[in-house]
Amino acid sequence: MVCAVEIYEKPKLNDPVLIEGLPGIGFVANIAALHLIRELKAKRFAEIISASFQDFAVTTEEGGARSPINELYYCKRDDGNRDLIIWYGNTQALTTFGQYELCGKVLDLAQELGCRFVISLGGFKKDEVKVTPDVYSAATDNETLSQALSLETKVMVGYIFGIAGLLIGLSKLRNLKGFALLVDTLGMYPDANAARSALEILSKYLNLKIDLTRLSNAAEETKKILESFGMIRNVAQEKKKKEEQLRWFI
Amino acid sequence: MVCAVEIYEKPKLNDPVLIEGLPGIGFVANIAALHLIRELKAKRFAEIISASFQDFAVTTEEGGARSPINELYYCKRDDGNRDLIIWYGNTQALTTFGQYELCGKVLDLAQELGCRFVISLGGFKKDEVKVTPDVYSAATDNETLSQALSLETKVMVGYIFGIAGLLIGLSKLRNLKGFALLVDTLGMYPDANAARSALEILSKYLNLKIDLTRLSNAAEETKKILESFGMIRNVAQEKKKKEEQLRWFI
Amino acid sequence: MVCAVEIYEKPKLNDPVLIEGLPGIGFVANIAALHLIRELKAKRFAEIISASFQDFAVTTEEGGARSPINELYYCKRDDGNRDLIIWYGNTQALTTFGQYELCGKVLDLAQELGCRFVISLGGFKKDEVKVTPDVYSAATDNETLSQALSLETKVMVGYIFGIAGLLIGLSKLRNLKGFALLVDTLGMYPDANAARSALEILSKYLNLKIDLTRLSNAAEETKKILESFGMIRNVAQEKKKKEEQLRWFI
Amino acid sequence: MVCAVEIYEKPKLNDPVLIEGLPGIGFVANIAALHLIRELKAKRFAEIISASFQDFAVTTEEGGARSPINELYYCKRDDGNRDLIIWYGNTQALTTFGQYELCGKVLDLAQELGCRFVISLGGFKKDEVKVTPDVYSAATDNETLSQALSLETKVMVGYIFGIAGLLIGLSKLRNLKGFALLVDTLGMYPDANAARSALEILSKYLNLKIDLTRLSNAAEETKKILESFGMIRNVAQEKKKKEEQLRWFI
Repeated sequence: MVCAVEIYEKPKLNDPVLIEGLPGIGFVANIAALHLIRELKAKRFAEIISASFQDFAVTTEEGGARSPINELYYCKRDDGNRDLIIWYGNTQALTTFGQYELCGKVLDLAQELGCRFVISLGGFKKDEVKVTPDVYSAATDNETLSQALSLETKVMVGYIFGIAGLLIGLSKLRNLKGFALLVDTLGMYPDANAARSALEILSKYLNLKIDLTRLSNAAEETKKILESFGMIRNVAQEKKKKEEQLRWFI
Repeated sequence: MVCAVEIYEKPKLNDPVLIEGLPGIGFVANIAALHLIRELKAKRFAEIISASFQDFAVTTEEGGARSPINELYYCKRDDGNRDLIIWYGNTQALTTFGQYELCGKVLDLAQELGCRFVISLGGFKKDEVKVTPDVYSAATDNETLSQALSLETKVMVGYIFGIAGLLIGLSKLRNLKGFALLVDTLGMYPDANAARSALEILSKYLNLKIDLTRLSNAAEETKKILESFGMIRNVAQEKKKKEEQLRWFI
Repeated sequence: MVCAVEIYEKPKLNDPVLIEGLPGIGFVANIAALHLIRELKAKRFAEIISASFQDFAVTTEEGGARSPINELYYCKRDDGNRDLIIWYGNTQALTTFGQYELCGKVLDLAQELGCRFVISLGGFKKDEVKVTPDVYSAATDNETLSQALSLETKVMVGYIFGIAGLLIGLSKLRNLKGFALLVDTLGMYPDANAARSALEILSKYLNLKIDLTRLSNAAEETKKILESFGMIRNVAQEKKKKEEQLRWFI
Repeated sequence: MVCAVEIYEKPKLNDPVLIEGLPGIGFVANIAALHLIRELKAKRFAEIISASFQDFAVTTEEGGARSPINELYYCKRDDGNRDLIIWYGNTQALTTFGQYELCGKVLDLAQELGCRFVISLGGFKKDEVKVTPDVYSAATDNETLSQALSLETKVMVGYIFGIAGLLIGLSKLRNLKGFALLVDTLGMYPDANAARSALEILSKYLNLKIDLTRLSNAAEETKKILESFGMIRNVAQEKKKKEEQLRWFI
């Protein structure tokens, strides 16, 4: 077993957009994806486990044991708009190798379901953040970037770490289109406010009508789990470690 | 060669339960499994070596050379109770990748033999331990957890590191059921007392009649080997290192 | 996906020479290869991505997202001289394992196109460098070394790290011929002067007529990208880390 | 390419014994194997390169470039004694994974050629060493150990690191027989005296008539190469690092 995908259903989807929502800086993508899944009543159709995930189980307060896992959900829309594939999970892979493999597997499956457009979400760590945080974008091509910029985002300059960046880069190499949305965040806790900004822009772009009044629930849930496992401080440390791992690269 | 399984026999087993007994905190599982194998005269039917084990041989006082290895034993019971598969060994894998692979191989084989239930054993490191140590459990599902809690265990909250945790998590993903038993231990030496608690609960659950008078033999043997190789202090260090390796994860 | 090669075209080439130009000490090879590609209007015919590259995207000032990638270009020459295959990229692989795999894939493809001779370029880090830097060479065999030495290079003594060394070593094992050119450089910045020396020797050997007046453009471009990402200081650190990784080896 | 074996010839051998001679503590095995190859005029029949070797080339004083490599030689004997397969090289693999893979490949090929007996050589690092150093042995089984002990060796107690240990352990799992000879050495330089002891015992066991007067040549050559690359001090450091890598293990 290297990276195993278990597919429960192969839905027929209308020009679906893949939205990435794994844990990362500020847990922006993770909160947004959880909220989307709930509000849209998205249906889980695939589970992915990888030998590059951490080798442990985590227990809930009720004694259940959970594994590191990624999941894919779909949402069909009867209003003629593009359907959605939502990539959710409780971890990214531990190694560069595992990240490429994971991203490749998800893209393989998404493309099989007709996906030609991807959106990755993430946090952009800042020491100070405005009440309405700035959102930055990067894209596979100029035309797509123009679309992203027209959503009141700014041009992202710098590295996009982890799956959020890898997804855009690998999509470009597969001739898919897409953009990344990076929201300013202090990055030290699950940032509901940043997730709100991401969801507002996402809704505008995808013609989604998402009720954001319950967003705090998704953030609270994420926060509660994270706090109980003492993971909140670890993200910042991880980020630092990643930066140190950088090698020559143009 | 990545992870090679050599199967000597494919026994016909009655609804067998897989019991994990690899070295870990306090060597609780390792002592308990060794004692079970001896008392039940369990028969070895498979050997597993992995390229993710340490690359050396260890010599015995008699000059024999032993490799890092895992073994599977079975025990048939003529009293109508479920048969047992015991997973014993002198090491876990060195890498996360190797742990997943090892656990996957063992589950593949166990399932092929009809296994639908797994039990992992382990130590729960504490700075102080009562004379009768507390035992904690986590399970694949609520029903199984209820069974574990009815055996006078408490709900486990936190991480379950290594194979003990991975086995429960991966079993859940394979729609198997099972629980982990984690016994309080100082974790600095092979803890016969903790192994006793694990075996008492295991015996109650599986209707086993295990004579525990010779348990100290298994612990002494484990202790003797460990001491001669200076491994006892290493476990605590390993645990610390593992905790530092943690990354974002809900 | 481990190391994926996408081939756009399989050109018919006349006894082609493979020239390696990946980032390394002083970015000597990288600048030289970029200049060759532009001046010779070389055509890209293959892209390579590897799971052993870094897992991120980098954004340009214009918001485009770029992945770690390697590329192969070819240049047909109508003057009867040997054609060229130029190996360019913005990264080497992160792991030893990835380096071997990458080098093997490129050699497989080059050999399929008839290549029997390879040239790797690189910097040789020195604390002081003359205005006209010394150039050192190492070769797969004595005859080829004689050719390299006749180009006013000196004998290289010591390690040749990374792809520049691996390419010569693996080529020798495949019964290909070739040499490495290592140019003295301080190694702390993209060294146009060192690249010039490499190109002059290369031109002499391959009967190339390369206009070097625009070489500073290639160096400036390389420098600009590197500075914006703060990568310049990292190369020296990397080099040190590599040296520490050395193990017994004759 | 993971671990590639190039076979030049498949010799017909008479019950051949595999002798391991890779670099390690005191370079005992390496010197002994080089001397055997020369004195017996052993013929190279296979080369092995692995992606787990270091990613560089080393240059000789004459400008030749050499890769990390392992080689297999054979020696046919017309006196009715068992033939020999000699495993020589300038490196071991960098990772545990690579070590298992390398050892597995060599054993596969040796078994294909009829080998049922292996001998690994190595140094046993001591702070003080007698003029005639003690030699220790460990074996796959009691009968073989008795043979080894009858050669005036003592029982080895402790770890046997690297290929020397792995080979005996993996051979046992393959139902091959064999022993390891570990010679006391200070381990800080290529130890011709220790290699002499290893060769004397080997000669007695295999009925070899090896002229040891030229042994110093093999040691000098090994020493010269090692010194020019500054590798001598690294072995001791490596050994220390290896010990730190130890994990729980009985």
